[in-house]
Amino acid sequence: MAHTTARQPVTRFGVDGHQDRRADSLAVEEPLEIQIDGEPFTVTMRTPGHDLDLALGFLVAEGVVRGPEDVVSARHCPDAARDADGNPTHNVVTVDLAPGVVRPEPARHRLVSSACGVCGTASIDAVATRSPYVLALDQVGLDVGTLAGLPARMRTAQAVFERTGGLHAAALFTADGQLLCLREDVGRHNAVDKVAGWAFTQGRLPLRGHVLQVSGRASFELVQKAWMAGCPVLAAVSAPSSLAADLAAAAGMTLIGFSRGERFSVYAGAERILGG
Amino acid sequence: MAHTTARQPVTRFGVDGHQDRRADSLAVEEPLEIQIDGEPFTVTMRTPGHDLDLALGFLVAEGVVRGPEDVVSARHCPDAARDADGNPTHNVVTVDLAPGVVRPEPARHRLVSSACGVCGTASIDAVATRSPYVLALDQVGLDVGTLAGLPARMRTAQAVFERTGGLHAAALFTADGQLLCLREDVGRHNAVDKVAGWAFTQGRLPLRGHVLQVSGRASFELVQKAWMAGCPVLAAVSAPSSLAADLAAAAGMTLIGFSRGERFSVYAGAERILGG
Repeated sequence: MAHTTARQPVTRFGVDGHQDRRADSLAVEEPLEIQIDGEPFTVTMRTPGHDLDLALGFLVAEGVVRGPEDVVSARHCPDAARDADGNPTHNVVTVDLAPGVVRPEPARHRLVSSACGVCGTASIDAVATRSPYVLALDQVGLDVGTLAGLPARMRTAQAVFERTGGLHAAALFTADGQLLCLREDVGRHNAVDKVAGWAFTQGRLPLRGHVLQVSGRASFELVQKAWMAGCPVLAAVSAPSSLAADLAAAAGMTLIGFSRGERFSVYAGAERILGG
Repeated sequence: MAHTTARQPVTRFGVDGHQDRRADSLAVEEPLEIQIDGEPFTVTMRTPGHDLDLALGFLVAEGVVRGPEDVVSARHCPDAARDADGNPTHNVVTVDLAPGVVRPEPARHRLVSSACGVCGTASIDAVATRSPYVLALDQVGLDVGTLAGLPARMRTAQAVFERTGGLHAAALFTADGQLLCLREDVGRHNAVDKVAGWAFTQGRLPLRGHVLQVSGRASFELVQKAWMAGCPVLAAVSAPSSLAADLAAAAGMTLIGFSRGERFSVYAGAERILGG
Protein backbone atom coordinates (compact mmCIF):
# COMPACT_ATOMS: atom_id res chain seq x y z
CA MET A 1 0.00 0.00 0.00
CA ALA A 2 1.08 3.52 -0.72
CA HIS A 3 1.59 5.73 2.30
CA THR A 4 1.39 9.50 1.98
CA THR A 5 2.99 10.20 5.35
CA ALA A 6 5.78 8.57 7.33
CA ARG A 7 6.64 8.87 11.02
CA GLN A 8 10.18 10.07 11.63
CA PRO A 9 11.95 11.27 14.77
CA VAL A 10 12.42 15.01 15.15
CA THR A 11 14.19 17.14 17.74
CA ARG A 12 12.62 20.51 18.37
CA PHE A 13 14.62 23.46 19.69
CA GLY A 14 13.40 26.80 21.03
CA VAL A 15 15.33 30.01 21.58
CA ASP A 16 14.05 29.83 25.17
CA GLY A 17 16.13 26.68 25.72
CA HIS A 18 13.21 24.33 25.11
CA GLN A 19 14.17 21.00 23.60
CA ASP A 20 12.19 17.82 23.05
CA ARG A 21 12.28 14.76 20.89
CA ARG A 22 9.25 13.06 19.40
CA ALA A 23 7.89 11.44 16.27
CA ASP A 24 6.63 13.67 13.48
CA SER A 25 4.65 12.89 10.32
CA LEU A 26 6.41 13.83 7.12
CA ALA A 27 5.02 13.78 3.61
CA VAL A 28 6.42 10.83 1.72
CA GLU A 29 8.47 11.61 -1.40
CA GLU A 30 9.59 8.78 -3.67
CA PRO A 31 10.57 8.42 -7.31
CA LEU A 32 7.99 7.27 -9.82
CA GLU A 33 9.18 5.99 -13.17
CA ILE A 34 6.60 6.41 -15.91
CA GLN A 35 7.03 3.97 -18.76
CA ILE A 36 5.31 3.97 -22.15
CA ASP A 37 4.77 0.51 -23.61
CA GLY A 38 7.25 -0.76 -21.01
CA GLU A 39 10.00 1.67 -22.02
CA PRO A 40 11.21 4.35 -19.54
CA PHE A 41 9.79 7.79 -20.37
CA THR A 42 10.45 9.95 -17.31
CA VAL A 43 10.98 9.90 -13.55
CA THR A 44 9.28 12.30 -11.16
CA MET A 45 9.63 12.63 -7.39
CA ARG A 46 6.11 12.32 -6.04
CA THR A 47 4.01 11.40 -3.02
CA PRO A 48 2.75 7.83 -3.55
CA GLY A 49 -0.93 7.40 -4.28
CA HIS A 50 -3.01 7.84 -7.43
CA ASP A 51 0.10 6.91 -9.42
CA LEU A 52 -1.81 5.79 -12.50
CA ASP A 53 -3.72 9.09 -12.57
CA LEU A 54 -0.40 10.89 -12.20
CA ALA A 55 1.06 9.05 -15.18
CA LEU A 56 -2.02 9.60 -17.35
CA GLY A 57 -2.30 13.26 -16.38
CA PHE A 58 1.37 13.76 -17.19
CA LEU A 59 0.82 12.26 -20.63
CA VAL A 60 -2.20 14.54 -21.15
CA ALA A 61 -0.05 17.56 -20.31
CA GLU A 62 2.64 16.37 -22.70
CA GLY A 63 0.09 16.03 -25.49
CA VAL A 64 0.65 12.28 -25.82
CA VAL A 65 -2.94 11.23 -25.06
CA ARG A 66 -6.30 13.00 -25.18
CA GLY A 67 -8.91 10.45 -24.17
CA PRO A 68 -9.39 6.90 -22.87
CA GLU A 69 -9.35 5.55 -26.43
CA ASP A 70 -5.64 6.44 -26.65
CA VAL A 71 -4.73 4.07 -23.81
CA VAL A 72 -4.89 0.27 -23.77
CA SER A 73 -3.91 -0.06 -20.11
CA ALA A 74 -2.17 1.73 -17.25
CA ARG A 75 -0.76 -0.38 -14.45
CA HIS A 76 1.90 -0.70 -11.78
CA CYS A 77 4.92 -2.90 -12.53
CA PRO A 78 5.67 -4.22 -9.04
CA ASP A 79 8.42 -6.49 -10.31
CA ALA A 80 10.25 -3.73 -12.18
CA ALA A 81 11.69 -2.19 -9.02
CA ARG A 82 12.45 -3.65 -5.63
CA ASP A 83 13.46 -1.89 -2.45
CA ALA A 84 16.60 -2.52 -0.40
CA ASP A 85 14.98 -5.57 1.19
CA GLY A 86 14.04 -7.11 -2.14
CA ASN A 87 10.36 -6.32 -1.80
CA PRO A 88 8.42 -5.04 -4.80
CA THR A 89 7.66 -1.31 -4.79
CA HIS A 90 4.93 0.72 -6.43
CA ASN A 91 7.39 3.10 -8.06
CA VAL A 92 7.10 2.03 -11.68
CA VAL A 93 3.98 2.38 -13.83
CA THR A 94 3.58 1.69 -17.51
CA VAL A 95 1.02 3.11 -19.88
CA ASP A 96 0.40 1.01 -22.97
CA LEU A 97 -0.74 3.25 -25.81
CA ALA A 98 -3.30 2.29 -28.41
CA PRO A 99 -2.11 1.50 -31.93
CA GLY A 100 -1.77 4.66 -33.99
CA VAL A 101 -0.96 6.95 -31.05
CA VAL A 102 2.32 8.73 -31.75
CA ARG A 103 4.98 7.63 -29.27
CA PRO A 104 6.99 10.54 -27.84
CA GLU A 105 10.75 10.60 -27.50
CA PRO A 106 11.86 9.59 -23.99
CA ALA A 107 13.12 12.15 -21.48
CA ARG A 108 11.43 14.95 -23.36
CA HIS A 109 11.92 17.60 -20.74
CA ARG A 110 13.06 20.40 -22.99
CA LEU A 111 10.33 22.98 -23.21
CA VAL A 112 11.53 24.63 -26.38
CA SER A 113 14.32 23.97 -28.82
CA SER A 114 16.94 26.42 -29.96
CA ALA A 115 15.51 26.08 -33.43
CA CYS A 116 12.34 27.97 -32.47
CA GLY A 117 14.11 30.34 -30.13
CA VAL A 118 14.40 30.30 -26.37
CA CYS A 119 12.11 33.01 -25.07
CA GLY A 120 8.72 33.40 -23.44
CA THR A 121 6.94 33.87 -26.76
CA ALA A 122 8.41 30.68 -28.19
CA SER A 123 7.43 28.79 -25.03
CA ILE A 124 3.85 30.00 -25.41
CA ASP A 125 3.79 29.11 -29.09
CA ALA A 126 5.02 25.60 -28.28
CA VAL A 127 2.07 25.00 -25.93
CA ALA A 128 -0.41 26.63 -28.32
CA THR A 129 0.70 24.30 -31.08
CA ARG A 130 0.23 21.28 -28.85
CA SER A 131 -3.07 22.05 -27.10
CA PRO A 132 -6.16 20.65 -28.80
CA TYR A 133 -8.51 23.04 -26.97
CA VAL A 134 -9.63 26.62 -27.70
CA LEU A 135 -10.52 27.89 -24.24
CA ALA A 136 -11.83 31.22 -25.53
CA LEU A 137 -14.96 29.38 -26.67
CA ASP A 138 -15.72 28.37 -23.08
CA GLN A 139 -18.17 31.04 -21.89
CA VAL A 140 -18.64 29.78 -18.34
CA GLY A 141 -19.59 32.55 -15.91
CA LEU A 142 -18.02 32.72 -12.46
CA ASP A 143 -19.44 34.15 -9.27
CA VAL A 144 -17.06 36.23 -7.13
CA GLY A 145 -18.23 34.73 -3.85
CA THR A 146 -17.95 31.18 -5.14
CA LEU A 147 -14.41 31.73 -6.44
CA ALA A 148 -13.31 33.44 -3.24
CA GLY A 149 -14.48 30.47 -1.20
CA LEU A 150 -12.63 27.76 -3.13
CA PRO A 151 -9.28 27.87 -1.26
CA ALA A 152 -11.05 27.40 2.08
CA ARG A 153 -13.11 24.53 0.68
CA MET A 154 -9.94 22.92 -0.64
CA ARG A 155 -8.13 23.26 2.68
CA THR A 156 -11.07 21.79 4.56
CA ALA A 157 -10.85 18.74 2.35
CA GLN A 158 -7.10 18.45 2.84
CA ALA A 159 -6.98 16.04 5.73
CA VAL A 160 -3.39 15.10 5.04
CA PHE A 161 -2.24 18.70 5.06
CA GLU A 162 -3.13 19.00 8.70
CA ARG A 163 -0.79 16.16 9.49
CA THR A 164 2.34 17.20 7.63
CA GLY A 165 2.17 20.81 6.48
CA GLY A 166 4.21 19.56 3.59
CA LEU A 167 1.82 18.82 0.79
CA HIS A 168 0.60 20.87 -2.13
CA ALA A 169 -2.95 20.43 -3.34
CA ALA A 170 -4.94 20.73 -6.52
CA ALA A 171 -8.72 20.56 -6.59
CA LEU A 172 -11.22 20.44 -9.41
CA PHE A 173 -14.48 22.31 -8.90
CA THR A 174 -17.58 22.89 -10.98
CA ALA A 175 -18.32 26.53 -11.75
CA ASP A 176 -20.86 26.61 -8.92
CA GLY A 177 -18.30 25.40 -6.38
CA GLN A 178 -18.91 21.66 -6.17
CA LEU A 179 -15.71 19.77 -5.35
CA LEU A 180 -15.14 16.92 -7.80
CA CYS A 181 -11.59 15.78 -7.09
CA LEU A 182 -8.82 16.71 -4.66
CA ARG A 183 -5.26 15.45 -4.91
CA GLU A 184 -2.13 16.16 -2.87
CA ASP A 185 1.57 15.78 -3.51
CA VAL A 186 4.94 17.17 -2.46
CA GLY A 187 5.04 18.62 -5.99
CA ARG A 188 2.30 20.99 -7.10
CA HIS A 189 2.72 19.84 -10.72
CA ASN A 190 2.14 16.24 -9.63
CA ALA A 191 -1.05 17.18 -7.78
CA VAL A 192 -2.35 18.82 -10.97
CA ASP A 193 -1.36 15.77 -13.04
CA LYS A 194 -3.24 13.53 -10.61
CA VAL A 195 -6.39 15.63 -11.02
CA ALA A 196 -6.07 15.71 -14.82
CA GLY A 197 -5.47 11.96 -14.87
CA TRP A 198 -8.59 11.38 -12.77
CA ALA A 199 -10.61 13.48 -15.21
CA PHE A 200 -9.04 11.57 -18.11
CA THR A 201 -10.10 8.20 -16.75
CA GLN A 202 -13.59 9.58 -16.08
CA GLY A 203 -13.90 10.67 -19.72
CA ARG A 204 -14.27 14.27 -18.53
CA LEU A 205 -11.66 15.90 -20.76
CA PRO A 206 -11.77 18.65 -21.87
CA LEU A 207 -12.68 20.24 -18.54
CA ARG A 208 -15.16 22.71 -20.02
CA GLY A 209 -16.81 24.95 -17.43
CA HIS A 210 -14.55 23.79 -14.57
CA VAL A 211 -12.21 25.56 -12.16
CA LEU A 212 -8.83 24.16 -11.15
CA GLN A 213 -7.75 25.50 -7.75
CA VAL A 214 -4.14 25.03 -6.59
CA SER A 215 -2.25 25.84 -3.43
CA GLY A 216 0.78 28.09 -3.69
CA ARG A 217 1.86 29.84 -6.85
CA ALA A 218 0.93 29.61 -10.51
CA SER A 219 3.81 28.91 -12.86
CA PHE A 220 4.00 28.57 -16.63
CA GLU A 221 3.96 24.80 -16.17
CA LEU A 222 0.66 24.78 -14.26
CA VAL A 223 -1.07 26.99 -16.83
CA GLN A 224 0.24 24.65 -19.52
CA LYS A 225 -1.22 21.63 -17.73
CA ALA A 226 -4.60 23.35 -17.25
CA TRP A 227 -4.70 24.31 -20.94
CA MET A 228 -3.80 20.81 -22.10
CA ALA A 229 -6.69 19.49 -19.98
CA GLY A 230 -9.06 22.05 -21.51
CA CYS A 231 -9.75 23.82 -18.19
CA PRO A 232 -10.85 27.46 -18.66
CA VAL A 233 -10.07 28.68 -15.13
CA LEU A 234 -6.93 28.27 -13.01
CA ALA A 235 -6.92 29.78 -9.52
CA ALA A 236 -3.86 29.93 -7.26
CA VAL A 237 -3.62 30.92 -3.63
CA SER A 238 -0.44 32.91 -4.25
CA ALA A 239 1.18 34.86 -7.08
CA PRO A 240 1.42 33.88 -10.72
CA SER A 241 4.59 34.45 -12.71
CA SER A 242 4.68 36.86 -15.63
CA LEU A 243 4.87 34.00 -18.13
CA ALA A 244 1.97 32.20 -16.45
CA ALA A 245 -0.14 35.33 -16.99
CA ASP A 246 1.05 35.66 -20.59
CA LEU A 247 0.30 32.02 -21.36
CA ALA A 248 -3.16 32.25 -19.76
CA ALA A 249 -3.95 35.31 -21.88
CA ALA A 250 -2.79 33.50 -25.03
CA ALA A 251 -4.88 30.47 -24.08
CA GLY A 252 -8.06 32.43 -23.40
CA MET A 253 -7.87 31.16 -19.82
CA THR A 254 -8.99 32.96 -16.68
CA LEU A 255 -6.02 33.12 -14.30
CA ILE A 256 -6.67 34.01 -10.67
CA GLY A 257 -4.00 34.69 -8.06
CA PHE A 258 -3.75 35.80 -4.44
CA SER A 259 -7.05 34.10 -3.72
CA ARG A 260 -7.28 34.56 0.03
CA GLY A 261 -10.77 34.59 1.38
CA GLU A 262 -12.37 37.96 0.77
CA ARG A 263 -10.46 39.02 -2.33
CA PHE A 264 -8.59 37.74 -5.34
CA SER A 265 -6.76 39.14 -8.36
CA VAL A 266 -7.42 38.26 -11.98
CA TYR A 267 -4.49 38.33 -14.39
CA ALA A 268 -6.26 37.15 -17.54
CA GLY A 269 -9.78 36.39 -18.68
CA ALA A 270 -11.58 38.67 -16.20
CA GLU A 271 -14.59 38.78 -18.54
CA ARG A 272 -15.73 35.41 -17.15
CA ILE A 273 -16.26 36.97 -13.71
CA LEU A 274 -19.94 37.82 -13.42
CA GLY A 275 -20.47 41.51 -12.80
CA GLY A 276 -16.84 42.13 -13.73
CA MET B 1 19.27 43.72 -18.99
CA ALA B 2 17.53 41.03 -17.03
CA HIS B 3 14.39 42.09 -15.21
CA THR B 4 13.17 40.10 -12.23
CA THR B 5 9.72 41.70 -12.17
CA ALA B 6 7.31 42.85 -14.87
CA ARG B 7 4.33 45.19 -14.61
CA GLN B 8 1.10 43.63 -15.79
CA PRO B 9 -2.53 44.74 -15.50
CA VAL B 10 -4.63 43.04 -12.85
CA THR B 11 -8.30 43.28 -11.94
CA ARG B 12 -9.07 42.79 -8.25
CA PHE B 13 -12.43 41.54 -7.02
CA GLY B 14 -13.83 41.46 -3.50
CA VAL B 15 -16.79 39.54 -2.12
CA ASP B 16 -18.09 42.94 -0.94
CA GLY B 17 -18.49 44.02 -4.57
CA HIS B 18 -15.20 45.87 -4.65
CA GLN B 19 -13.51 45.93 -8.05
CA ASP B 20 -10.54 47.87 -9.37
CA ARG B 21 -7.99 47.63 -12.10
CA ARG B 22 -4.34 48.56 -11.74
CA ALA B 23 -0.83 47.49 -12.62
CA ASP B 24 0.82 44.79 -10.54
CA SER B 25 4.41 43.54 -10.38
CA LEU B 26 4.83 39.88 -11.23
CA ALA B 27 7.96 37.77 -10.92
CA VAL B 28 9.43 37.16 -14.34
CA GLU B 29 9.66 33.53 -15.47
CA GLU B 30 11.49 32.70 -18.70
CA PRO B 31 13.24 29.63 -20.11
CA LEU B 32 17.01 29.34 -19.78
CA GLU B 33 18.81 26.89 -22.00
CA ILE B 34 22.06 25.64 -20.49
CA GLN B 35 24.57 24.44 -23.04
CA ILE B 36 27.79 22.54 -22.48
CA ASP B 37 30.49 23.30 -25.04
CA GLY B 38 27.77 24.89 -27.18
CA GLU B 39 25.53 21.80 -27.16
CA PRO B 40 22.09 21.91 -25.47
CA PHE B 41 22.11 20.22 -22.05
CA THR B 42 18.88 21.25 -20.33
CA VAL B 43 16.22 23.95 -20.15
CA THR B 44 14.88 25.35 -16.90
CA MET B 45 12.17 27.95 -16.30
CA ARG B 46 13.80 30.60 -14.16
CA THR B 47 13.72 34.24 -13.12
CA PRO B 48 16.37 36.07 -15.16
CA GLY B 49 19.46 37.26 -13.32
CA HIS B 50 22.61 35.47 -12.18
CA ASP B 51 22.16 33.11 -15.12
CA LEU B 52 25.81 32.06 -15.24
CA ASP B 53 25.75 31.22 -11.53
CA LEU B 54 22.56 29.24 -12.13
CA ALA B 55 24.21 27.24 -14.91
CA LEU B 56 27.36 26.58 -12.90
CA GLY B 57 25.43 25.68 -9.75
CA PHE B 58 23.28 23.28 -11.76
CA LEU B 59 26.41 21.58 -13.10
CA VAL B 60 27.79 21.33 -9.55
CA ALA B 61 24.57 19.63 -8.42
CA GLU B 62 24.75 17.24 -11.36
CA GLY B 63 28.32 16.33 -10.47
CA VAL B 64 29.72 17.64 -13.76
CA VAL B 65 32.07 20.23 -12.22
CA ARG B 66 33.65 20.67 -8.80
CA GLY B 67 35.82 23.77 -9.00
CA PRO B 68 36.82 26.68 -11.25
CA GLU B 69 39.55 24.57 -12.84
CA ASP B 70 36.85 22.43 -14.48
CA VAL B 71 35.46 25.38 -16.45
CA VAL B 72 37.13 27.32 -19.27
CA SER B 73 34.35 29.88 -19.59
CA ALA B 74 30.69 30.50 -18.87
CA ARG B 75 28.89 33.10 -20.94
CA HIS B 76 25.60 34.20 -22.44
CA CYS B 77 24.97 33.43 -26.11
CA PRO B 78 22.86 36.45 -27.07
CA ASP B 79 22.73 35.44 -30.73
CA ALA B 80 21.52 31.91 -30.01
CA ALA B 81 17.96 33.01 -29.22
CA ARG B 82 15.98 36.02 -30.31
CA ASP B 83 12.62 37.21 -29.11
CA ALA B 84 9.52 37.79 -31.24
CA ASP B 85 10.88 41.18 -32.35
CA GLY B 86 14.21 39.71 -33.44
CA ASN B 87 16.13 41.13 -30.49
CA PRO B 88 18.74 38.98 -28.75
CA THR B 89 17.69 37.50 -25.42
CA HIS B 90 19.68 36.38 -22.41
CA ASN B 91 18.05 32.97 -22.35
CA VAL B 92 20.94 30.81 -23.54
CA VAL B 93 24.20 30.28 -21.66
CA THR B 94 27.03 27.94 -22.49
CA VAL B 95 29.61 26.48 -20.16
CA ASP B 96 32.81 25.39 -21.86
CA LEU B 97 34.39 22.59 -19.85
CA ALA B 98 38.11 22.11 -19.38
CA PRO B 99 39.84 19.27 -21.25
CA GLY B 100 39.54 16.02 -19.33
CA VAL B 101 36.24 16.85 -17.62
CA VAL B 102 33.75 14.08 -18.41
CA ARG B 103 30.90 15.42 -20.52
CA PRO B 104 27.46 14.27 -19.32
CA GLU B 105 24.72 12.96 -21.56
CA PRO B 106 22.25 15.71 -22.50
CA ALA B 107 18.76 15.86 -20.96
CA ARG B 108 19.88 13.75 -18.04
CA HIS B 109 16.86 14.31 -15.86
CA ARG B 110 16.32 10.77 -14.76
CA LEU B 111 17.19 10.47 -11.10
CA VAL B 112 17.71 6.75 -11.06
CA SER B 113 17.63 4.04 -13.67
CA SER B 114 15.59 0.87 -13.60
CA ALA B 115 18.83 -1.05 -13.46
CA CYS B 116 19.54 0.11 -9.91
CA GLY B 117 15.92 0.01 -8.82
CA VAL B 118 13.41 2.80 -8.46
CA CYS B 119 13.02 3.47 -4.76
CA GLY B 120 14.10 5.92 -2.11
CA THR B 121 17.15 3.88 -1.13
CA ALA B 122 18.37 3.70 -4.73
CA SER B 123 17.85 7.47 -5.10
CA ILE B 124 19.96 8.08 -2.00
CA ASP B 125 22.66 5.69 -3.20
CA ALA B 126 22.80 7.51 -6.54
CA VAL B 127 23.57 10.83 -4.85
CA ALA B 128 26.00 9.24 -2.40
CA THR B 129 27.95 7.77 -5.30
CA ARG B 130 28.15 11.14 -7.01
CA SER B 131 28.93 13.48 -4.12
CA PRO B 132 32.62 14.13 -3.52
CA TYR B 133 32.06 15.36 0.05
CA VAL B 134 31.76 13.56 3.39
CA LEU B 135 29.69 15.97 5.43
CA ALA B 136 29.98 13.92 8.63
CA LEU B 137 33.54 15.24 8.97
CA ASP B 138 32.23 18.81 9.20
CA GLN B 139 32.02 19.46 12.93
CA VAL B 140 30.66 22.99 12.79
CA GLY B 141 28.64 23.92 15.88
CA LEU B 142 25.40 25.85 15.55
CA ASP B 143 23.76 28.22 18.00
CA VAL B 144 19.99 27.87 18.44
CA GLY B 145 19.37 31.61 18.51
CA THR B 146 21.45 32.23 15.41
CA LEU B 147 19.68 29.49 13.45
CA ALA B 148 16.26 30.67 14.56
CA GLY B 149 17.00 34.16 13.30
CA LEU B 150 18.08 33.22 9.76
CA PRO B 151 14.64 33.20 8.07
CA ALA B 152 13.95 36.73 9.29
CA ARG B 153 17.38 37.90 8.14
CA MET B 154 16.75 36.33 4.76
CA ARG B 155 13.34 37.97 4.38
CA THR B 156 14.74 41.35 5.34
CA ALA B 157 17.24 41.01 2.52
CA GLN B 158 14.55 39.96 0.06
CA ALA B 159 13.66 43.30 -1.43
CA VAL B 160 12.09 41.73 -4.49
CA PHE B 161 9.83 39.52 -2.40
CA GLU B 162 8.05 42.55 -1.06
CA ARG B 163 7.16 43.59 -4.58
CA THR B 164 5.82 40.34 -6.02
CA GLY B 165 5.15 37.78 -3.33
CA GLY B 166 6.09 35.29 -6.00
CA LEU B 167 9.74 34.49 -5.47
CA HIS B 168 11.51 31.78 -3.57
CA ALA B 169 14.81 32.53 -1.89
CA ALA B 170 17.99 30.77 -0.92
CA ALA B 171 20.61 32.38 1.30
CA LEU B 172 24.07 31.30 2.31
CA PHE B 173 25.15 32.14 5.86
CA THR B 174 28.26 31.55 7.91
CA ALA B 175 27.73 29.51 11.07
CA ASP B 176 27.63 32.71 13.11
CA GLY B 177 24.86 34.18 10.95
CA GLN B 178 26.69 36.42 8.50
CA LEU B 179 24.82 36.63 5.18
CA LEU B 180 27.14 35.88 2.27
CA CYS B 181 24.82 35.48 -0.69
CA LEU B 182 21.07 35.76 -1.32
CA ARG B 183 19.38 34.70 -4.56
CA GLU B 184 15.73 34.61 -5.63
CA ASP B 185 13.83 32.76 -8.30
CA VAL B 186 10.36 31.50 -9.17
CA GLY B 187 11.89 28.04 -8.64
CA ARG B 188 13.41 27.16 -5.27
CA HIS B 189 15.85 24.76 -6.95
CA ASN B 190 17.05 27.58 -9.22
CA ALA B 191 17.64 29.88 -6.24
CA VAL B 192 19.80 27.18 -4.65
CA ASP B 193 21.69 26.63 -7.91
CA LYS B 194 22.38 30.38 -8.12
CA VAL B 195 23.86 30.36 -4.61
CA ALA B 196 25.96 27.26 -5.31
CA GLY B 197 27.15 28.79 -8.59
CA TRP B 198 28.16 31.98 -6.79
CA ALA B 199 30.15 29.92 -4.28
CA PHE B 200 31.69 27.95 -7.16
CA THR B 201 32.97 31.09 -8.89
CA GLN B 202 34.31 32.37 -5.57
CA GLY B 203 36.30 29.18 -5.08
CA ARG B 204 34.31 28.51 -1.89
CA LEU B 205 33.28 24.92 -2.59
CA PRO B 206 32.88 22.77 -0.58
CA LEU B 207 30.77 24.96 1.72
CA ARG B 208 32.31 23.64 4.93
CA GLY B 209 30.88 25.26 8.06
CA HIS B 210 28.09 27.08 6.20
CA VAL B 211 24.30 27.12 6.48
CA LEU B 212 22.01 27.18 3.46
CA GLN B 213 18.63 28.69 4.32
CA VAL B 214 15.71 28.32 1.91
CA SER B 215 12.15 29.57 1.84
CA GLY B 216 9.34 27.03 1.65
CA ARG B 217 9.88 23.30 1.87
CA ALA B 218 12.86 20.97 1.72
CA SER B 219 12.68 18.30 -0.96
CA PHE B 220 15.03 15.48 -1.89
CA GLU B 221 16.33 17.67 -4.71
CA LEU B 222 17.36 20.53 -2.39
CA VAL B 223 19.19 18.19 0.00
CA GLN B 224 20.95 16.70 -3.02
CA LYS B 225 22.07 20.15 -4.18
CA ALA B 226 23.31 21.09 -0.70
CA TRP B 227 25.26 17.84 -0.43
CA MET B 228 26.83 18.24 -3.87
CA ALA B 229 27.99 21.71 -2.78
CA GLY B 230 29.45 20.29 0.43
CA CYS B 231 27.13 22.29 2.72
CA PRO B 232 26.62 20.61 6.13
CA VAL B 233 23.42 22.44 7.11
CA LEU B 234 20.19 22.97 5.17
CA ALA B 235 17.40 24.92 6.85
CA ALA B 236 13.89 25.33 5.41
CA VAL B 237 11.06 27.55 6.57
CA SER B 238 8.51 24.77 6.04
CA ALA B 239 8.37 20.99 6.11
CA PRO B 240 10.87 18.54 4.67
CA SER B 241 9.76 15.41 2.85
CA SER B 242 10.50 11.95 4.22
CA LEU B 243 13.11 11.33 1.54
CA ALA B 244 14.74 14.70 2.19
CA ALA B 245 15.19 13.66 5.84
CA ASP B 246 16.50 10.23 4.82
CA LEU B 247 18.98 11.72 2.35
CA ALA B 248 20.21 14.27 4.90
CA ALA B 249 20.78 11.48 7.44
CA ALA B 250 22.71 9.45 4.87
CA ALA B 251 24.77 12.52 3.96
CA GLY B 252 25.65 13.41 7.53
CA MET B 253 23.83 16.71 6.97
CA THR B 254 21.88 18.73 9.53
CA LEU B 255 18.37 19.25 8.17
CA ILE B 256 16.18 21.90 9.79
CA GLY B 257 12.49 22.48 9.04
CA PHE B 258 9.61 24.62 10.27
CA SER B 259 12.09 27.38 11.12
CA ARG B 260 9.73 30.14 12.17
CA GLY B 261 11.19 32.60 14.55
CA GLU B 262 11.25 31.18 18.05
CA ARG B 263 11.45 27.48 17.23
CA PHE B 264 12.61 25.00 14.65
CA SER B 265 12.67 21.24 14.14
CA VAL B 266 15.72 19.14 13.33
CA TYR B 267 15.23 16.02 11.22
CA ALA B 268 18.85 14.90 10.93
CA GLY B 269 22.23 15.86 12.36
CA ALA B 270 20.93 17.43 15.60
CA GLU B 271 24.35 16.82 17.19
CA ARG B 272 25.65 19.99 15.51
CA ILE B 273 23.21 22.11 17.53
CA LEU B 274 25.13 23.47 20.52
CA GLY B 275 23.55 22.39 23.78
CA GLY B 276 21.48 19.83 21.88
